[in-house]
Amino acid sequence: KELSLVPDAATFDRAKMEDLLKRRFFYDQSFAIYGGITGQFDFGPMGCAFKANLLQTWRQFFVLEEQMLEVDCSILTPETVLKASGHVDRFADLMTKDMKTGECFRLDHLIKAHLEKISADKKTSNETKADCSDIIIKLDGMNKAEMAAVMVKFNMKSPLTGNDLTEPIEFNLMFGTQIGPSGLIKGFLRPETAQGIFVNFKRLLEFNQGKLPFAAAQIGNAFRNEISPRSGLIRVREFTMAEIEHFCDPDDKKHPKFVDVAQTEMLLYSACNQMDGKAAERVKIGDAVEKGLVANETLGYFMARIQMFLIQSGVETTKLRFRQHMANEMAHYAQDCWDAECLTSYGWIECVGCADRSAYDLTQHTKATGVRLAAEKKLPEPKVIDVVEAIPNKGLLGKTFKKDAKIITDALNLLSESAVDDFDKQLQGKGSYDLVVDGKSFNLTKEMIEVKKYQKTIHVDEITPSVIEPSFGVGRIMYAIFEHNFKMRENDEQRTYLSLPSSVAPLKCSVLPLSSNVEFQPFIKKISAALTKVDVSHKVDDSSGSIGRRYARTDEIAIPYGITIDFDTLKEPHSVTLRERDSMNQVRIPLEEIAQVIHELSYNKTKWTIVEGKYPKFDQQENKAT
Amino acid sequence: KELSLVPDAATFDRAKMEDLLKRRFFYDQSFAIYGGITGQFDFGPMGCAFKANLLQTWRQFFVLEEQMLEVDCSILTPETVLKASGHVDRFADLMTKDMKTGECFRLDHLIKAHLEKISADKKTSNETKADCSDIIIKLDGMNKAEMAAVMVKFNMKSPLTGNDLTEPIEFNLMFGTQIGPSGLIKGFLRPETAQGIFVNFKRLLEFNQGKLPFAAAQIGNAFRNEISPRSGLIRVREFTMAEIEHFCDPDDKKHPKFVDVAQTEMLLYSACNQMDGKAAERVKIGDAVEKGLVANETLGYFMARIQMFLIQSGVETTKLRFRQHMANEMAHYAQDCWDAECLTSYGWIECVGCADRSAYDLTQHTKATGVRLAAEKKLPEPKVIDVVEAIPNKGLLGKTFKKDAKIITDALNLLSESAVDDFDKQLQGKGSYDLVVDGKSFNLTKEMIEVKKYQKTIHVDEITPSVIEPSFGVGRIMYAIFEHNFKMRENDEQRTYLSLPSSVAPLKCSVLPLSSNVEFQPFIKKISAALTKVDVSHKVDDSSGSIGRRYARTDEIAIPYGITIDFDTLKEPHSVTLRERDSMNQVRIPLEEIAQVIHELSYNKTKWTIVEGKYPKFDQQENKAT
Repeated sequence: KELSLVPDAATFDRAKMEDLLKRRFFYDQSFAIYGGITGQFDFGPMGCAFKANLLQTWRQFFVLEEQMLEVDCSILTPETVLKASGHVDRFADLMTKDMKTGECFRLDHLIKAHLEKISADKKTSNETKADCSDIIIKLDGMNKAEMAAVMVKFNMKSPLTGNDLTEPIEFNLMFGTQIGPSGLIKGFLRPETAQGIFVNFKRLLEFNQGKLPFAAAQIGNAFRNEISPRSGLIRVREFTMAEIEHFCDPDDKKHPKFVDVAQTEMLLYSACNQMDGKAAERVKIGDAVEKGLVANETLGYFMARIQMFLIQSGVETTKLRFRQHMANEMAHYAQDCWDAECLTSYGWIECVGCADRSAYDLTQHTKATGVRLAAEKKLPEPKVIDVVEAIPNKGLLGKTFKKDAKIITDALNLLSESAVDDFDKQLQGKGSYDLVVDGKSFNLTKEMIEVKKYQKTIHVDEITPSVIEPSFGVGRIMYAIFEHNFKMRENDEQRTYLSLPSSVAPLKCSVLPLSSNVEFQPFIKKISAALTKVDVSHKVDDSSGSIGRRYARTDEIAIPYGITIDFDTLKEPHSVTLRERDSMNQVRIPLEEIAQVIHELSYNKTKWTIVEGKYPKFDQQENKAT
Repeated sequence: KELSLVPDAATFDRAKMEDLLKRRFFYDQSFAIYGGITGQFDFGPMGCAFKANLLQTWRQFFVLEEQMLEVDCSILTPETVLKASGHVDRFADLMTKDMKTGECFRLDHLIKAHLEKISADKKTSNETKADCSDIIIKLDGMNKAEMAAVMVKFNMKSPLTGNDLTEPIEFNLMFGTQIGPSGLIKGFLRPETAQGIFVNFKRLLEFNQGKLPFAAAQIGNAFRNEISPRSGLIRVREFTMAEIEHFCDPDDKKHPKFVDVAQTEMLLYSACNQMDGKAAERVKIGDAVEKGLVANETLGYFMARIQMFLIQSGVETTKLRFRQHMANEMAHYAQDCWDAECLTSYGWIECVGCADRSAYDLTQHTKATGVRLAAEKKLPEPKVIDVVEAIPNKGLLGKTFKKDAKIITDALNLLSESAVDDFDKQLQGKGSYDLVVDGKSFNLTKEMIEVKKYQKTIHVDEITPSVIEPSFGVGRIMYAIFEHNFKMRENDEQRTYLSLPSSVAPLKCSVLPLSSNVEFQPFIKKISAALTKVDVSHKVDDSSGSIGRRYARTDEIAIPYGITIDFDTLKEPHSVTLRERDSMNQVRIPLEEIAQVIHELSYNKTKWTIVEGKYPKFDQQENKAT
């Protein structure tokens, strides 16, 4: 049913777009002269400028507008941190190997391709076809045993050789390395930027003067050793992420600005509808939160803001949906999770994840370090509580357990009240207690620990904040924007262009003298200086091609506005033509106003239709000018 | 003698500055709650904003102003690329290990510390002292054998245990990893961003329509597995670089804009003066190039531009010098190299390198790949040349040498004219020729190769461009700027602040209501909206402290301008006070003008002295207001 949303797919020519992107070096494979490595790309001048503008827009839209705390953390991460976060144990994809050649395949992709092939076969029964499509929908949430069963059921072999395949193997996607000259400290390249924020939680909370809620943000690179990367920018080994971690009271996930976005219409594809084979539905986010379809206001607020950001940056409204994770697909600690997906020629691809991760990460790092990552919440009125505390005799512990003493005191610090109570009973009874930390047992005696019980008046509760995490895949967003903005001129399929919004376009403006006439030179310099003064990036093209041909070149690199200097420019009052890329319409503008007009157009301070209404139309055809 | 340039060093209190930077979370050790790893730092909100502004300034100053081609290349780099660039074989530091404990020391640092200790000893003879200081000066250029000799001569032991030390060991500084699931592709984290530009040379030249000179630029992270990192941000394992590779004709290194900078005075510390124990000299860059002290105009142009950028960003003029590499310190291929060094409490530290790398890198990658990385240079007039060409019989070569055939044709392509001539003679004489590629010998017969000799008219020469490379260490520049701008208020040493230039300051402006009076609220909102509209980042501080105390807090995080809303603001015509951080002077400005004034101050469009002259002085003391 979702496929009804693929109107352009039939006419979209991916090879043609990729040719443009490669030819004008938006991006291309890394180290190509060395044969290249799959899953790695370099951004050339135009791709790099587009990326920088997109990130600047993101920073403006999220960090500055919401006063988030932006940080910039290390990429190389010690193993202990990623052990606590669960990545060392669980950040893996299933793969299978060709028994003879050793070739590796990512298992879910292999199953999907295999089942699609079966479904496409005319001889396949309807029953089997239904079975296949059911499996494909549920694939994202399947575990090792379930996938192994599918392999057996459909008698899967290596698609390249027909050889037998191994049982599913878990392959950890992190790149490992050693830190320091001794080779003893194991580290990984971070697989996401989020952990850098979590381990800095205490510092950030303090920077925010102890107050909740607040959000931290980070733009940076992350690395995943994909099993068999393909699909261009969509599945890569090295990529830029922009992540937000919004820390809030777990009992209060309301958002003060939710009211501003409640009327936003969004295409929501709920877990229920996915399971039931129904389509996505267009819903107001206010209604979705009220009905409980989206877990809370803060999650809903970010979903609406994500949608606004994507559309403003060039994603097409009709090719954007939010898909809810199904229960078996979601991490066990997550409360709710919605992916912003863009429709491309590769199908719907996840571009932004938006999850309520509850208190999972902070809790894990607290457990691993003994450092309490928590915030204080003011009580409506002070309350008196019973306190039970296990106070270690540090000297004696140190003498007895040497360097393990710290592990013990850390563990004591983290004991719950009831655990201390239990502890005390055993100490009083047996005279000693076996404390187990990380599988190691320590026999603690009465002399080592004093259990104190008393009452105290407290004014604050200590809470571990919940985290709402919008996580943006920058390369995927760029790719979707490329596809959604790749256009052909009517009646001329060879003349392709990119209709990127001016805010993210690599350059805002071109300056084209009609010919190499020297009289044009001072005007080029003057306009270029005026544009630089108002921060309008631009490109002077005084090469010898016709105006029409030069415009076609600037259209390819998505330059939204073009200034032509012609013989009328030389006459007083001096004027130039201004051309808009998508409509190819032109107006005539006084020389002294041109820089300011383009500045306003580039930074969304005015619209082309307004400029068109204000200045006289310039009717000379581009083709005539050639 | 250089030490005469350390006037503030005596009064500078590094611990106090580091306390401020840590307390207000400009930056701090990464993963501290896990014990941390030396040589890794996270930037908090203020450090991150400072860094982003510094990079934005850099982009404006170099990339946009000089129309450079900015790229964004992969960090994970396959071994073959770094083998060709020389990093696999030579990117190493010498270390020595404690024979018993295995502790690793970076050898040059160990020698320096040891000799400094000897020099400081009163019992040491003047002769030995002179010897020590001579070695310290030449240390950077010493090789393994020379350092080993120093170790023996001064009978060096482990400074921690007194144990014997091993012979010098070469330790490669690159972090290694495996790419892909098979573990067969070896890769490294790039140790510099430059190689990404070199391997893209062909694409970039094409983007520039085949024309020289042009410059490419890249901002990105690089990694070096330092043996024993210390000195805070100065020696780290993971850092941001901003690099420029300017490609030009090796026979023409003039620069059209050199005339604009020729009068710039710079403190140059030539190799000769270093060897002779003389001081650095203040010279106009025009004179330095004319005298041949600086190798060419392009190198000189970049040196002057680097100086302007650093000073504009907050480096103190009197604490900046350019030090020339000594012959033994410079890479063998480099023609000339000057480091921009900043004076800090750690001594003079290299912040920007500026080298003429000749054609080394492009030549190396051409040799390794068989892909000619060269440009065409138009001849003044066409010329007729003799061509000798070895044309392989591909079918026969393929049959005979199988997959080695490609290696052979690549090698044939790269043979010089005289080599082909020699080749031909042997083929005609002996009937065969032994071609040696990478140590492997291939016996080629007459049937396999046809040597053609003919004449041809050429219009262009093929040249391998020279590369001038300014390379910026962003973290080091930030550190130097911190030190150069850390100040104390007269008569109040506890009140410290950072006098960062407004262009790079993390936030441009604070908005402080005199009290929590509700009547101030609409003015706060109005001012905040007006500031946002003109892109002025700001912070509203409506906490309950006195104005003086709140200003002290904003001074600590380098906010250059502060707006106070007081009871006079409520009266018509509405007005506010504007305070400047360094002078603490205040003026009274109409409400409707305030945002524009701060915008102009923040983006260097006006100066505080001009604003002070234009608006009435506001005399109320900060202390009175408390």
